[in-house]
Amino acid sequence: MKFYSFLLFVPVLATSTNLIAQNLQEPRPYEIAAKQIIAEGLQSCWAFSMLENLSLKIGPRLVGSSQAAQAVEWGIKTMKDLGFQNVHTEPCMVPHWIRGPIEEASILTSDGKIIPINICALGGSIATMENGVTAEVLQVKSFDELKSLSDKAKGKIIFFNRPMDKSKINPGEAYGGAVNQRGSGAVEAAAVGGVAALVRSMTMQLDNVPHTGSMHYIDTIPKVPAAAISTVGANLLDSLLAVDKNLKVNIQLTCQTLPDVESANVIGELIGTENPEEVIVIGGHLDSWDKGHGAHDDGAGSVHVIEALRLLKELGLKPKRTIRAVLFMNEEFGLNGGVAYAKRDRPGEKHICAIETDAGGFTPRGFGVGADSIAFPKFARWSYLLDPIDAGRITRGGGGADISELAKLGVITIGLRVDGQKYFDYHHSDNDTIDKVHPRELELGAIAIAIFSYVIAQEGI
Amino acid sequence: MKFYSFLLFVPVLATSTNLIAQNLQEPRPYEIAAKQIIAEGLQSCWAFSMLENLSLKIGPRLVGSSQAAQAVEWGIKTMKDLGFQNVHTEPCMVPHWIRGPIEEASILTSDGKIIPINICALGGSIATMENGVTAEVLQVKSFDELKSLSDKAKGKIIFFNRPMDKSKINPGEAYGGAVNQRGSGAVEAAAVGGVAALVRSMTMQLDNVPHTGSMHYIDTIPKVPAAAISTVGANLLDSLLAVDKNLKVNIQLTCQTLPDVESANVIGELIGTENPEEVIVIGGHLDSWDKGHGAHDDGAGSVHVIEALRLLKELGLKPKRTIRAVLFMNEEFGLNGGVAYAKRDRPGEKHICAIETDAGGFTPRGFGVGADSIAFPKFARWSYLLDPIDAGRITRGGGGADISELAKLGVITIGLRVDGQKYFDYHHSDNDTIDKVHPRELELGAIAIAIFSYVIAQEGI
Repeated sequence: MKFYSFLLFVPVLATSTNLIAQNLQEPRPYEIAAKQIIAEGLQSCWAFSMLENLSLKIGPRLVGSSQAAQAVEWGIKTMKDLGFQNVHTEPCMVPHWIRGPIEEASILTSDGKIIPINICALGGSIATMENGVTAEVLQVKSFDELKSLSDKAKGKIIFFNRPMDKSKINPGEAYGGAVNQRGSGAVEAAAVGGVAALVRSMTMQLDNVPHTGSMHYIDTIPKVPAAAISTVGANLLDSLLAVDKNLKVNIQLTCQTLPDVESANVIGELIGTENPEEVIVIGGHLDSWDKGHGAHDDGAGSVHVIEALRLLKELGLKPKRTIRAVLFMNEEFGLNGGVAYAKRDRPGEKHICAIETDAGGFTPRGFGVGADSIAFPKFARWSYLLDPIDAGRITRGGGGADISELAKLGVITIGLRVDGQKYFDYHHSDNDTIDKVHPRELELGAIAIAIFSYVIAQEGI
Repeated sequence: MKFYSFLLFVPVLATSTNLIAQNLQEPRPYEIAAKQIIAEGLQSCWAFSMLENLSLKIGPRLVGSSQAAQAVEWGIKTMKDLGFQNVHTEPCMVPHWIRGPIEEASILTSDGKIIPINICALGGSIATMENGVTAEVLQVKSFDELKSLSDKAKGKIIFFNRPMDKSKINPGEAYGGAVNQRGSGAVEAAAVGGVAALVRSMTMQLDNVPHTGSMHYIDTIPKVPAAAISTVGANLLDSLLAVDKNLKVNIQLTCQTLPDVESANVIGELIGTENPEEVIVIGGHLDSWDKGHGAHDDGAGSVHVIEALRLLKELGLKPKRTIRAVLFMNEEFGLNGGVAYAKRDRPGEKHICAIETDAGGFTPRGFGVGADSIAFPKFARWSYLLDPIDAGRITRGGGGADISELAKLGVITIGLRVDGQKYFDYHHSDNDTIDKVHPRELELGAIAIAIFSYVIAQEGI
């Protein structure tokens, strides 16, 4: 694009279908406030500065860890420094699983070669015995295939190698179509006599980085170790199995589960000037996996909601109803914070809605609103305020894991929708670092939440 | 985001306001074709493979260079290999400016320090004398400021240091507000007796990479050399000038303008089955600056339009009207290809519209359509086909530099709108490399063009 083409470029991006008409009219309700929020946010890009602090000074924040505890302190200090109201914590008990110093794996070929492969324990896995588990490998693409091959599974490492479906538009849907391998692979493997589960990483990216994430056991099935293998490693193992069915894999894990510890949600507010008892929750989660920086998942969401309140406060935009930022603890590994928040007695309070941001710090596209056909239009009517940042596509259906307990209580839950094509490239892995976050894209997410929560606080539903 | 939250995540992203209603209805016109295009594109991500070839095997393609000539050959071969129809070139004469082996600059402080700074010649600049130009510096933020300080300008290097306005939503608009410094800085500097123009790079990113781009001279004003300085360098120079007004800067450039050479647009088609004489142009530009890989600008656009035709052909979707992919030559430095295309006599042909993609290989948001209020709805009606990839925001006003000559002839011009927040981080610099392009984001742009051009070819306007 050359220099004078901006003359063409600008109207393309800045013009809405009725811009000319609008220019001749008075601004519509809240358009001036929305413009102020947008300009202040983009000028400062404050969200990114906060995320640098969280990502680089504290780092990843696995629930139960000392970094997670530091993140709670960081959240309190940040909110207090910004002058939020009612800054406090609400305690919850959380699990404490640790990865341990050793997680290694190798392919042992029939002709004596030893080929190291990149793996990582899945969250919640037991350790292997000392020197690890060494066994032949049964590769499957589904639990049904595993059941059909159950006579061949005994004593083997079960290698779950169904990729995410690239033809899906929404990588979240492709993730949903593959992630049962990670969550339930160990149970399914052990049920047919397998000795470990090795799961293809949940990403469409072809690289050598394993992606962790939670898995579970059930009481009636023996526990076997479970690890993720990088996509490059998975493809290599697949190729080698095609020519060497009797190769073995050795996996060594030293992870362990320690006693539960106390942690907390971090909360700060702008108290409503007219109906303080009516509450709009805006939330992200403070914990992350112990990989990378936990930058997109969900450092981004944590700073989104702090920045949304900061923008309103900085601009003197006083909500009539209370907007409450909640940094939930332990979204990744049990939802303790979300459950504790929903269970807590809050006499006299009424939740208008809860908005979660847990899809990364990418450019926002809109909001998904989990409301019925009567309530939905009361949210969708504000899309024109978000159209200037191309985030005005408000669709039905939405929420988030942390606020799913509130949904069960009848609260309308809403999710920030962002451009999701890169999310699983980084998710739960050493790729999820601050350099993958763009300051302006991140800020636009905070701006979207500030505008949407503010107008809901003013007008209710 | 934890594993079972996809249950919430998927409906958020995949649900439109009337999904439930739609599922009970017949598909709307072209929905099946659009779904096929989306699935085939995302499954293959073929556009990225082509861009790897163009970016890595040929590299940057400055107009007039041997790489630009190779790119023409690449375009022909690629289109022929894919089985397009009427594959041919249409010649045009183009300028041939070369950067030369030396471009260096240093700050010379009053106390004798020599601090190297990263610069690059602006496209079209003359060289400096041997050993360069060494002079004191006059910093200004605008041409008006320069005029008000014209008595201090004689013999100085004029340092144009007005940043892009970060508060603008659209970086293209911020670019538009700063780029006159690059285009006209040398003329304005020389008009008041300045000996060179040093221009802050056109990016909001703070880094040490200078961004080039075109500049111009006018016959009545002496020519002085013009270079871009990185944003880090610009901030450094600004800081040093605050404490050392008499520092000097040395700039050495060895660029030169050689005689014009012949080059060409590359063209391939799917000929319309019913109205072959009615043409929809889809175009990007094959040339780039001589920095990075020219990956986003506009390798992305070049492969977008090839891939759009490939998708239709692969799926057996035969357009009723002709869809013509045009790889324009020299968008960056004179629009020769665009002018030649528009001037050429094409007996019996009628252009329905021309669609340009020259905003990078980022996720598409929609199309800007430069049509009047009567024609516009005939394009906007197809937004539902693009909504599934979140690219359905069709707005009024749009086009592109290469097709601006067609617009003058009354052809409706359309621009692909993409997520533009990162574009100027890379634009015209060594940052514009293939690793900055995401295969799925790139492919979605090609998919959007395939769907939109196909449905226009079927239904006309």
